Amino acid sequence: MEAEYGGGGGGGDLESSLLSGDSQFDEHRASRIRRMASNTTSQLAIIGSKLCPIESLDYERSCRLIENDFLKQDWRSREPVHIVQYVILKWTLCFLVGALSGAVGFFNNLAVENIAGVKFVITSNMMLASKYGWAFAVFAGSNFVLLMFASAITIFISPAAAGSGIPEVKAYLNGVDAPQIFSLKTLCVKVVGSIAAVSSSLHVGKAGPLVHTSSCIASILGQGGSRKYNLTWRWLRYFKNDRDRRDLVTCGAGAGIAAAFRAPVGGVLFALECVSSWWRSALLWRAFFTTAMVAVVLRALIDICRSGKCGLFGKGGLIMFDVTSADVSYHLVDLPPVIVLGVIGGILGSFYNFVLDKVLKVYNLIHKKGHGYKFFLAASVSIFTSCCLFGLPWLASCKPCPAGLSEACPSIGRSGNFKKFQCAPDHYNDLASLFFNTNDDTIRNLYSAGTDNVFQKSSVLLFFVTSYFLGIISYGLAVPSGLFVPVILCGATFGRLVGMLMGSHSTLNHGLFAVLGSASLLAGSMRMTVSVCVIMLELTNNLLLLPLVMLVLLISKTVADAFNSDVYDLIVKLKGLPYLESHAEPYMRHLTVGDVVSGPLQLFNGIEKVSNIFHVLKSTGHHGFPVIDEPPLSDTPVLFGLILRSHLLVLLKKKQFVCTRTVAGSEASIQLSADDFAKRGSGKHEFIEGIELTAEEMNMYVDLHPFTNTSPYTVVETMSLAKALILFREVGLRHLLVIPKSSSRAPVVGILTRHDFMPEHILGLHPFLCRSSWKKLWFRKLNSSDLSLFKK
Amino acid sequence: MEAEYGGGGGGGDLESSLLSGDSQFDEHRASRIRRMASNTTSQLAIIGSKLCPIESLDYERSCRLIENDFLKQDWRSREPVHIVQYVILKWTLCFLVGALSGAVGFFNNLAVENIAGVKFVITSNMMLASKYGWAFAVFAGSNFVLLMFASAITIFISPAAAGSGIPEVKAYLNGVDAPQIFSLKTLCVKVVGSIAAVSSSLHVGKAGPLVHTSSCIASILGQGGSRKYNLTWRWLRYFKNDRDRRDLVTCGAGAGIAAAFRAPVGGVLFALECVSSWWRSALLWRAFFTTAMVAVVLRALIDICRSGKCGLFGKGGLIMFDVTSADVSYHLVDLPPVIVLGVIGGILGSFYNFVLDKVLKVYNLIHKKGHGYKFFLAASVSIFTSCCLFGLPWLASCKPCPAGLSEACPSIGRSGNFKKFQCAPDHYNDLASLFFNTNDDTIRNLYSAGTDNVFQKSSVLLFFVTSYFLGIISYGLAVPSGLFVPVILCGATFGRLVGMLMGSHSTLNHGLFAVLGSASLLAGSMRMTVSVCVIMLELTNNLLLLPLVMLVLLISKTVADAFNSDVYDLIVKLKGLPYLESHAEPYMRHLTVGDVVSGPLQLFNGIEKVSNIFHVLKSTGHHGFPVIDEPPLSDTPVLFGLILRSHLLVLLKKKQFVCTRTVAGSEASIQLSADDFAKRGSGKHEFIEGIELTAEEMNMYVDLHPFTNTSPYTVVETMSLAKALILFREVGLRHLLVIPKSSSRAPVVGILTRHDFMPEHILGLHPFLCRSSWKKLWFRKLNSSDLSLFKK
Repeated sequence: MEAEYGGGGGGGDLESSLLSGDSQFDEHRASRIRRMASNTTSQLAIIGSKLCPIESLDYERSCRLIENDFLKQDWRSREPVHIVQYVILKWTLCFLVGALSGAVGFFNNLAVENIAGVKFVITSNMMLASKYGWAFAVFAGSNFVLLMFASAITIFISPAAAGSGIPEVKAYLNGVDAPQIFSLKTLCVKVVGSIAAVSSSLHVGKAGPLVHTSSCIASILGQGGSRKYNLTWRWLRYFKNDRDRRDLVTCGAGAGIAAAFRAPVGGVLFALECVSSWWRSALLWRAFFTTAMVAVVLRALIDICRSGKCGLFGKGGLIMFDVTSADVSYHLVDLPPVIVLGVIGGILGSFYNFVLDKVLKVYNLIHKKGHGYKFFLAASVSIFTSCCLFGLPWLASCKPCPAGLSEACPSIGRSGNFKKFQCAPDHYNDLASLFFNTNDDTIRNLYSAGTDNVFQKSSVLLFFVTSYFLGIISYGLAVPSGLFVPVILCGATFGRLVGMLMGSHSTLNHGLFAVLGSASLLAGSMRMTVSVCVIMLELTNNLLLLPLVMLVLLISKTVADAFNSDVYDLIVKLKGLPYLESHAEPYMRHLTVGDVVSGPLQLFNGIEKVSNIFHVLKSTGHHGFPVIDEPPLSDTPVLFGLILRSHLLVLLKKKQFVCTRTVAGSEASIQLSADDFAKRGSGKHEFIEGIELTAEEMNMYVDLHPFTNTSPYTVVETMSLAKALILFREVGLRHLLVIPKSSSRAPVVGILTRHDFMPEHILGLHPFLCRSSWKKLWFRKLNSSDLSLFKK
Repeated sequence: MEAEYGGGGGGGDLESSLLSGDSQFDEHRASRIRRMASNTTSQLAIIGSKLCPIESLDYERSCRLIENDFLKQDWRSREPVHIVQYVILKWTLCFLVGALSGAVGFFNNLAVENIAGVKFVITSNMMLASKYGWAFAVFAGSNFVLLMFASAITIFISPAAAGSGIPEVKAYLNGVDAPQIFSLKTLCVKVVGSIAAVSSSLHVGKAGPLVHTSSCIASILGQGGSRKYNLTWRWLRYFKNDRDRRDLVTCGAGAGIAAAFRAPVGGVLFALECVSSWWRSALLWRAFFTTAMVAVVLRALIDICRSGKCGLFGKGGLIMFDVTSADVSYHLVDLPPVIVLGVIGGILGSFYNFVLDKVLKVYNLIHKKGHGYKFFLAASVSIFTSCCLFGLPWLASCKPCPAGLSEACPSIGRSGNFKKFQCAPDHYNDLASLFFNTNDDTIRNLYSAGTDNVFQKSSVLLFFVTSYFLGIISYGLAVPSGLFVPVILCGATFGRLVGMLMGSHSTLNHGLFAVLGSASLLAGSMRMTVSVCVIMLELTNNLLLLPLVMLVLLISKTVADAFNSDVYDLIVKLKGLPYLESHAEPYMRHLTVGDVVSGPLQLFNGIEKVSNIFHVLKSTGHHGFPVIDEPPLSDTPVLFGLILRSHLLVLLKKKQFVCTRTVAGSEASIQLSADDFAKRGSGKHEFIEGIELTAEEMNMYVDLHPFTNTSPYTVVETMSLAKALILFREVGLRHLLVIPKSSSRAPVVGILTRHDFMPEHILGLHPFLCRSSWKKLWFRKLNSSDLSLFKK
């Protein structure tokens, strides 16, 4: 975070000297400000593949709850018609987010199916003509070109579009505003790059990028047009605050999953369980509306495509595995295999996370060396993947086509269970059916019932091992890449394998085992429960599976939680995003708020000199400053409130100055409108450098009273840190003022921000904490992993 | 609420006089305490059919976050093994709640199917023998006896068991502890009474009572055994706090719906959307585990019954309408009928709420007159229902049985689509198939596909009108009664009717229309969206319905929200439960905290005289008191913290006294254990009357420091009320201390409790608010209903 806090301060002496002096900008103050600027711990994060400064969001203030006099007046002047406008706008935006997400999801699939389809058709035709060398050249070449294209646009246009995007969305909803993650550039690169990367047969998914895309759409729609392109609309001003944007982005995240898997209920639950940090039941209802729109748009577009106008877009587009045909019945005897599957799935899932973490660290080191290295890494993985996909099927022996099939064998062209590959007529290569296919088609093949004898154990085992590691090495590249599909694919293979090994010990068919295997690995890696369950049910359209899926999820998550945390948490940590957990760490109970506020405090007087404000803003990066009323404005120094940097910048820019230190009254604010104070789009800021003031103006004063938030949340300095964290997190604050216990001291002791609650910061201030209360190593281990449940 | 707040106080004069004086109990103080005791607005609520005092719960404190020195020491002494115990216990309790809820749900169904089944078999046999008079006598007589039994046990044993129970559970999870709602007596009466009431052919459901039953089981398991029956277990001590119990009750509420509809995912969503006020993703995971257990237990028990060992328990038990057989396809042409259905459903749903509200008010007036009136009301409704169910089918004309049916026509015995009733052989009475059946069977008949020609329009219309009003008049009786099944039944009939009227304008079959009709009326009355959607999908086991169900839900809820609030909110209001909304009313933005704290404040010194404590506790009902340190303990009077009434009572009972006004040190607490301070079971309290002290003891002192919560949440008196409400609600507080803005005044101004945030209380203090800011009536109307979304 870029020096979020307006200061902090341990002892009372410094503050009282500050308060007793007049407001002139003395040398003492300046020196302290310089000292403060050095405090930059954990204020940078890796977005995509570059380091960026991070800003916090303020979810507490919304258009309905603004506590300074100026905006309160504006609220009072609002007519009911404005409220109706707001409500209409809110639902319209949800509708648009849903419809656009559905359209983008469909377009994404259409493009992938066509690009990958053409590639496979050409390659298959060459294989039929026995031109194996040419086939490999075309296959590997097209994969290489597609991936290089995706890498190039990601690296040069929008590095923030790399990766899944879910960790960034999760952090945004927690209150961390990483720059550029929701820009228009990122949106375009994400859509195009994801299509190219998925089409290049890389083991990456489209679900994560779609979540990011939909959130991006939501954020861009919500930020109220663009002044740059002169696209502003008065109605959109209601959305110029963090809170309404957060709600919209939450709906967007749900819409992304809904679009990726055609799972509207699953999408809502995903947004609730995995990405959001705050939730209200009103939001459930709106998120539901958004995903319903996605479902409606997808259905309409698929209906249009049914007439064959969409090129190679077939059943394969938009994963939907209809397994209703299989009459699911299961008995007590099926439980042991399912439990075994759950346990192994949990272990495999947490191992997946572990290896992914290591690989990402190595990739980060490589990426830091320069753009050339990024391309080299992507190129290597692409060529390696092409070699695996094309080369490994040769290891399998050809099998004769089974009799009495409804589908063609060997299947010619794009999809189908029975790839001919190098085999003789009437034979098929089962390994090619897995490798030489789009991921969606492979998953459908694995899920399909009545195919128990199609695959050989050795083929499935080989494919499992390959896909497991290909998935891990493909994620960290500088291209948009999701984790869902690789994990589902790998889990389905694992499930089939377990089903095959169980043989006659279980009455379930192998397709069902594949479904359970996917659920198990998803739970093991991403630790989602209800959402995965519903997504699996919506994917397979079979509710009778429910109890079995639930059982597997429970077991896998429990087992995996014993080893490490979920994959998105790992990535958030790796990126250095200051994610605020909802639970307090045990040692926070033993600390008071006073123990962690650090650095000198920067205050303003109720009526402050312009030069002071200017210099303070120039020399610090703080985003909030306490405003103090001193005699003669009050009997004793009292805390008047908190003023934001952005509001101060507006005041300086609009030159709202008075000549004397008197209370200006309400006429001062006439020249300003509430829109001037509205929060601007993500990543857009005013800068102090853009403001020029004359020497005369520098000697004037500003009456800060009308623009100060008079109701900031406060805690007493003796409050336990754990409780302050709960307040900070539950209410969604950006600044929390610390006031002294004794009335004889200055009226404010410091400001707490997100940064001050980060374990790294606290443990840096109090290194003994690691050793004192929590002596035993095994217990610290226990505490950080499987007891995370307990602490919540 | 029973005088929740430790006081409050507008001006500073009273407090400073209090603080400057020594701690002797003077006449002035006593008189003020007497005045305070008169403040009892809205501190009573109707539970079941009697008035009860209400207490608030404290969801902020848990076993992990206790801020007084004494319990902090206790926490420090905990070994990791205790934490492991806690985690194991937490999951074991969830498992038990799930398993027991499943078992109770199954038992409930089994009993209803058998009792109602025997009744219908006997009556049908008499009808076959043309003994119509006898048949009516048996039918009406058995209904009457069953309902009188249910009424009797409800009225005499546990009045809190009357009604659905969902509003009480909702209020509990909001922090309102109505006495007796979770007692063992209530549990037993609820289970037995619900069986009797449902078997008596009354139009009441079992879902609501099952939610209450499961929550009851959760609460009883969570309250840590019983001292009375000597059932205590050391492990259970971790659950002796409101927060852990709340989590368990939330899981229980989900388990209830899961057991009622065999809808595990729907149950979790119901708990999330409808009953809970606080939610964390860790809870999602635990609730999910609980409902998974319900599903597993239900499945196992039904498997046992499949062999025919369960009497008349048949397909009808546990509503599960498998409509997968019907291949659902729908097109654009089906949208207009569905939209019409949604709009009318919304209107009918809100009208249902409106009439129910009026009927409940009338019933409350009648119930107040005495037990006789309660019985009379129940008897009248029972006889009227019997007359309708038996009499109205005679109005229908007999229809010849259609050819080529797979089921018998006319069906003899308990269930079946084609009731013979009074008809000639090979004919059936379609109205009797609706009326003369259990509700579950009727719903299945209505949902069944391929039955478009079975029912006549006039029959369905008559049944719709009758069931609509029977449902309304049956709810408020002094018996356990749910709202879900009547609304689903009525909605299904309404949907069929719309389907029939649409005729060839729609390609959907009438069974699907019935499903959509149910969804529509549920959304119109209960305003649930995602949970209803998932419950309907799980009931009908057909995910392809999803987009249509979503559309209907959205339309119905939107339409209904324009008229009134949801049915549970209406009941909560009617019962006078102080439910705290999550959003602030508009006028709260214009008030400060100082505007609402009222009544004189009751303080204690850090070291307080026993006689003072005793008299204050005796003369007030407050549950929290600020503790102040004065010179010589500190330089100036400072707020030390907040002490709870329950902790003071423990101190008095254990006689933790010292002779002089000195700080006692840590040895004082040796005689006490943390268990002494643990929260006791719901509705169980220590009373001051049970404590006897000698004159000598009265003159001694108590050192309150170790037992005071040193980190109470505080707000400055100038904080806006809306923001204070958000803090209070989001963190789940019971007491919120108000501190003065100016340091020259007493260190605490008052205490805010739930009561102070109630709109009735605030509007009582500031009656001008109604008129000033919100002038236009239509806007106030708009604001309170359809803009409730906006305010959230």
